[in-house]
Amino acid sequence: MNRDLIVALSGGIGGAKLALGLSRVLPPENVLIVANVGDDFEHLGLHVSPDIDTLLYTLAGLDHPVQGWGRADETWHFMETLRALGGADWFALGDRDLAIHIERTHRLRQGHSLSQITADFARRLGVAPRILPVSDDPVRTRLQTAEGWLPFQEYFVHQRCAPVVQGFAYDGAAQARAQPAVMAALRDPRLRAVVICPSNPYLSIDPMLAIPEFREAIAQCKAPVIAVSPIIGGRAVKGPTAKLMDELGLDPSSQAIGQHYGDLIDVLVIDPVDETGTALGIQMVVAPTLMKTLADREALARVVLRAV
Amino acid sequence: MNRDLIVALSGGIGGAKLALGLSRVLPPENVLIVANVGDDFEHLGLHVSPDIDTLLYTLAGLDHPVQGWGRADETWHFMETLRALGGADWFALGDRDLAIHIERTHRLRQGHSLSQITADFARRLGVAPRILPVSDDPVRTRLQTAEGWLPFQEYFVHQRCAPVVQGFAYDGAAQARAQPAVMAALRDPRLRAVVICPSNPYLSIDPMLAIPEFREAIAQCKAPVIAVSPIIGGRAVKGPTAKLMDELGLDPSSQAIGQHYGDLIDVLVIDPVDETGTALGIQMVVAPTLMKTLADREALARVVLRAV
Repeated sequence: MNRDLIVALSGGIGGAKLALGLSRVLPPENVLIVANVGDDFEHLGLHVSPDIDTLLYTLAGLDHPVQGWGRADETWHFMETLRALGGADWFALGDRDLAIHIERTHRLRQGHSLSQITADFARRLGVAPRILPVSDDPVRTRLQTAEGWLPFQEYFVHQRCAPVVQGFAYDGAAQARAQPAVMAALRDPRLRAVVICPSNPYLSIDPMLAIPEFREAIAQCKAPVIAVSPIIGGRAVKGPTAKLMDELGLDPSSQAIGQHYGDLIDVLVIDPVDETGTALGIQMVVAPTLMKTLADREALARVVLRAV
Repeated sequence: MNRDLIVALSGGIGGAKLALGLSRVLPPENVLIVANVGDDFEHLGLHVSPDIDTLLYTLAGLDHPVQGWGRADETWHFMETLRALGGADWFALGDRDLAIHIERTHRLRQGHSLSQITADFARRLGVAPRILPVSDDPVRTRLQTAEGWLPFQEYFVHQRCAPVVQGFAYDGAAQARAQPAVMAALRDPRLRAVVICPSNPYLSIDPMLAIPEFREAIAQCKAPVIAVSPIIGGRAVKGPTAKLMDELGLDPSSQAIGQHYGDLIDVLVIDPVDETGTALGIQMVVAPTLMKTLADREALARVVLRAV
């Protein structure tokens, strides 16, 4: 029996980079990427799945090299015109990017599931590893802030993560059914490891773990669970992870990330700059976690696989 | 009392050109353009109103100078990407044009009426004359063809007017309420004339006249009703008018256009090349009706106003 199957939990860009690395150092058919859907929302009548799209674009080599979302070869004529017509312009929708939202929304209304649609888009874009939304049921992250509860995109994009955060809710998670193919993979005797990618624990990973049967399946799975810390030297590479931790009264450190996941993980991969932190009851692997180049992504993927 | 109000019935590009001419030779606030909605349809989950958009773009000076639909300054990145994702690509949606469909659909779902939305778009695009959809209720043209009944856009765009047409249906027209502001204008003592623009009688004007109270109001109105023939020398400037007439067993002539409108009109404006046709019981005004330039549009508008 080859234990060659990797299940990787990913949010947006940070997770997508490691997912790309894993799918390049392994046969891509052995990599199953589980995508957060807590950021999904309806905007201008379109169903937008930001993390799935970042994964699709990153794995298809279409991702924007700097901004961390959207496509490299993008134009903005729709947005300019929408603004002239008085439309809501706080969420940027590129001309090419629009196609994925319109076609996905259309297929959802026709009764296709988010996972079916994602699989078809992946095939058409030439993405080899499987990308599966953690659930085909809606899970929606909300943030409790000093200004009251905010939907995820209102906080993240519209208010640019400015409000001070006190807590989180993952609406629908308690009732959501985890993706059957993901559940099967977690029970598969070929499972070699579960990798929690360096995504925001509160906004990218916890919305998935809030689905009871999914969390339970990870807790029960026989393969090791390896998390890669999204914190390097007290800061997140991208996004509000460190700011959030600070607001929650936590030290923004890889150690605190380890404590957050607790018993769920067996290994935490941290950057050398964080090596001086206090030891936890978790095995630590120290390796560079900043992924600037494709070689960095592959190198970190190899570190993760060696840690198994 | 100034009799200075003109009500102009228009389909797409042919009608829009004369509507533009009228709104340039008259104070634009005296021109009320009534737009066909029989071409409207839902595509990829978006409500598309082709004739309203052609009017908006033409009157805002944004129209494509040759193709007769869409915008001059258009790009096609959405379409390219949609095709790559396996989406339906038979109806061309430009990147800028998409904004009007998405924003309109969004506002319709929020409960705004088509006429409110059109008025706001017109204001934002700097269009001075009023453009009103003939009804805020759905009217949908279907064509009876040798291949069975086809929705308008299936016939017009997808099958490029190839099927042989035997008849028409205007679904919803019998139940539709005509636009109250249009009805008021037709009863307004300031009404100087009703102009039936050189649009396709079967596909652009009849879907409006199929609304009983609207047809009745035109038949009863005290001002003259002046139609401009869309046929010049046995051919339509744009679109399938002549082909349709031929398939319906009619001579594709301005005379046949006059017979089609019959008692509803008082004057028919025809091109000099059609002057040799048989006289009808309708007053004929002979003037060049081909509108290639802005000057042509203004000149034809003046001809129409003189014919009053």
